[in-house]
Amino acid sequence: MSGEDAPAQQQNAEEQKQQQETKTPAESPKTESKPDPPPSSASTEAATPAPAAEKAPEEDTFSYRALVLTGYGGYDKVKLQVKKGKPALKSGEVMVRVKICGLNFADLMARQGLYDRLPSPPVTPGMECSGIIEAVGEDVTDRKVGDKVLVLNRSGMWQEVVVVATTHTFLMPEGMSFEEAAALPVNYITAYLMLFDFGHLRPNQSVLIHMAAGGVGIAATQLCKTVNDVTVFGTASASKHEVISQGGVTHPIDYRTRDYVEEIRKISPKGLDIVLDPLGGSDTNKGYNLLKPMGKLISYGAANMLAGQKKNLFVVAKTWYQQFSVHTLSLIQGNRSVCGFHLGYLDSETELIAQAMAAIMDLYRQGKIKPRIDSTYHLEQVGDAMRRMQERNNIGKIILTTEPMKEEEKKEEAKKDEEKKKDDKKKDEKKKEDKKKDDAKKEEKKEEKEEAKKDDKKAEEKKEEAKKEEN
Amino acid sequence: MSGEDAPAQQQNAEEQKQQQETKTPAESPKTESKPDPPPSSASTEAATPAPAAEKAPEEDTFSYRALVLTGYGGYDKVKLQVKKGKPALKSGEVMVRVKICGLNFADLMARQGLYDRLPSPPVTPGMECSGIIEAVGEDVTDRKVGDKVLVLNRSGMWQEVVVVATTHTFLMPEGMSFEEAAALPVNYITAYLMLFDFGHLRPNQSVLIHMAAGGVGIAATQLCKTVNDVTVFGTASASKHEVISQGGVTHPIDYRTRDYVEEIRKISPKGLDIVLDPLGGSDTNKGYNLLKPMGKLISYGAANMLAGQKKNLFVVAKTWYQQFSVHTLSLIQGNRSVCGFHLGYLDSETELIAQAMAAIMDLYRQGKIKPRIDSTYHLEQVGDAMRRMQERNNIGKIILTTEPMKEEEKKEEAKKDEEKKKDDKKKDEKKKEDKKKDDAKKEEKKEEKEEAKKDDKKAEEKKEEAKKEEN
Repeated sequence: MSGEDAPAQQQNAEEQKQQQETKTPAESPKTESKPDPPPSSASTEAATPAPAAEKAPEEDTFSYRALVLTGYGGYDKVKLQVKKGKPALKSGEVMVRVKICGLNFADLMARQGLYDRLPSPPVTPGMECSGIIEAVGEDVTDRKVGDKVLVLNRSGMWQEVVVVATTHTFLMPEGMSFEEAAALPVNYITAYLMLFDFGHLRPNQSVLIHMAAGGVGIAATQLCKTVNDVTVFGTASASKHEVISQGGVTHPIDYRTRDYVEEIRKISPKGLDIVLDPLGGSDTNKGYNLLKPMGKLISYGAANMLAGQKKNLFVVAKTWYQQFSVHTLSLIQGNRSVCGFHLGYLDSETELIAQAMAAIMDLYRQGKIKPRIDSTYHLEQVGDAMRRMQERNNIGKIILTTEPMKEEEKKEEAKKDEEKKKDDKKKDEKKKEDKKKDDAKKEEKKEEKEEAKKDDKKAEEKKEEAKKEEN
Repeated sequence: MSGEDAPAQQQNAEEQKQQQETKTPAESPKTESKPDPPPSSASTEAATPAPAAEKAPEEDTFSYRALVLTGYGGYDKVKLQVKKGKPALKSGEVMVRVKICGLNFADLMARQGLYDRLPSPPVTPGMECSGIIEAVGEDVTDRKVGDKVLVLNRSGMWQEVVVVATTHTFLMPEGMSFEEAAALPVNYITAYLMLFDFGHLRPNQSVLIHMAAGGVGIAATQLCKTVNDVTVFGTASASKHEVISQGGVTHPIDYRTRDYVEEIRKISPKGLDIVLDPLGGSDTNKGYNLLKPMGKLISYGAANMLAGQKKNLFVVAKTWYQQFSVHTLSLIQGNRSVCGFHLGYLDSETELIAQAMAAIMDLYRQGKIKPRIDSTYHLEQVGDAMRRMQERNNIGKIILTTEPMKEEEKKEEAKKDEEKKKDDKKKDEKKKEDKKKDDAKKEEKKEEKEEAKKDDKKAEEKKEEAKKEEN
């Protein structure tokens, strides 16, 4: 399946014609800093169509800022641009004035050209956002101007104004913030369908959650806690253990210093009921071997393919090569299940999504789940946001706000940008060095082990000889 | 995994020492026709230990008939023998006087040497039976002499007396016949765990059940009907359609004359939520391609490997070669799940089995499920019973009764046996011929199709040329 298979999105096509790159945030036009129109005024706009004389100017002056992926590559390939012209609304669609956008791993993959569900660049990425409905198309009866909604879509959510089918919008419950709303759809629906549909999670079961401090990780942990006596194993670097423990992880494991398979076997010798695997490569095989009878392995990504800011063909090839493949006879003998999940391929399953979302909203209302926001960035800072996610420094969700940056902040940003570019180079060089050192160490260890084995063998031989002599 | 990995079963080891082959049923000793002791007398036996003087004779005279697989091969490899000596009872075990035994596909596979969960011959096959508890070992508090039970075990159930851990016995509910009880464990637990644990069956979903007239097929159909508005596609030969329709199959499909994939696509263009696949080989791939997003394929056998009375290496190799293997990236893009199930590998999962059994018994009490008995055979007729199953002539469960055959029946059997042997030869020859004819027909069809394609292509080319000329 390639991006070309995707039905072209009307908005994207229009966007491409209308987009106009803004090299620096300072160049952005006035409309950028214009505050969002209050719901009431927007409501009037939609309810009583403006006279023809006024219409033309409004279509001309209507503009909004949008993040655009201009080509595959590093963080700088996502640029802030200004789109002009009011998007047309088709029957069943609504226009949303976006407050907050959510960041996902798929966005990082997409930027490197590793995610085939994003149309080819130039294109606006982003699978989720929250905001206020500003206009409704014909035949829309279940949404009205002023409604606060969260939106889930295949792409195009990282901009100030989005046009989507109402079926892709969900009313925000009372008391939910826009930050929480934008952090919810992708992570919680993913975790929910994996744990409860594929996983059939029940009381007293055990679950392994990789990247337990990530967006899906935290959502999955919270959802595990809605079922009695579920044991959660969560991998994360040591500095995050306190937070994830408080969040519900029973056994946090530092995957950087420990062999997680050994750690889990020590505590659960029989293995696990569910393994959620966002890593791919050799970790899928490890997860499979950790399954109990009737256990389920749910693969939902190949984060192992992301080795740096830009696509690393060697790492991609290695992850692909190690990617898990299973024979039904092995599944039968083990009474096991292997599942694959990706929300990006479920965009036409509106009923399924709506059901999952309704259940999730219920849990939110009952106070059983609550999205954890790691950090908020301005649209201008999307590069920093992506870097934080890629380097796995976050605990919880990274979000973008459409709130404009203040002038003094912008100046500081520009300075920092220069420093970061230098820093990136240094990091890349350091990584290469570290890898070399690591490889050297591994080689040394291997040699040591082989020596040790040889020694053992010799000792065994001596013992046997001694025995023979005794006889 | 081989039979040698299996923990040796005490009973089997003893059986092997004690067994004494009975060439013809007529030779069986008197004890054979002795009626089962009534529960009350048995109760006395167990409650008040016999004096030492009497004990020795009882152990000597105690004997029971047992079916024994003497080597891998055809139907005649399962022989009726008499075992002597009362089996010893360990702590936590009970002795059951067997009334009825159930036949399963795994027994057919085992006879051909295609099922690694059966210890090596000579061994008593059989995974399930029903009967009355005749003695209880130490520390048994939840069962008493006289209890009517159904038994599920890895093997050894096709005999008049079995000794098993209490955890492998389940009390029969009020009103359940011994026939129903012996027909229940393997088929209903298999169908239950597949549909509700791996499958997570919910209202409005669709399920494909292959061999819908078989034991698992009928159990699965009934369990589907316990959920609202489930659409059941069931494959079976046309003569069975009326019965399976009455049993709950929404769309019966004659797999012998129709392409079931095409038939299903006509009715459910989007595909299916669950496919239960006992066939293996190329059918697993077809099932996989029929799945909707979030669909589950559950493979639970390789019935396609059974091509005749004896192991057919060509067919086994072909089925194995075609056996399905899947890559996680394909699962991810399709949002699909592939599961393997075999109750034979779950024998140590007592809690899981107990939970499933409790749910099944509840459904029985509510009248929502009821095992359908196809036919009952005497132990002496086990070959006929296996043949009926292998040739897929059954609708529902085939069972064996330990009730002794009457003398006149035995004589008739002996006559029939001779005829059957002749018949077998003829059938084998006919099959070979049919196969040849079939292959020839397929070849013809292939050629026809290719011709048709060529014709189409030519027509297309002509049209294009005509268009070009018009321009």
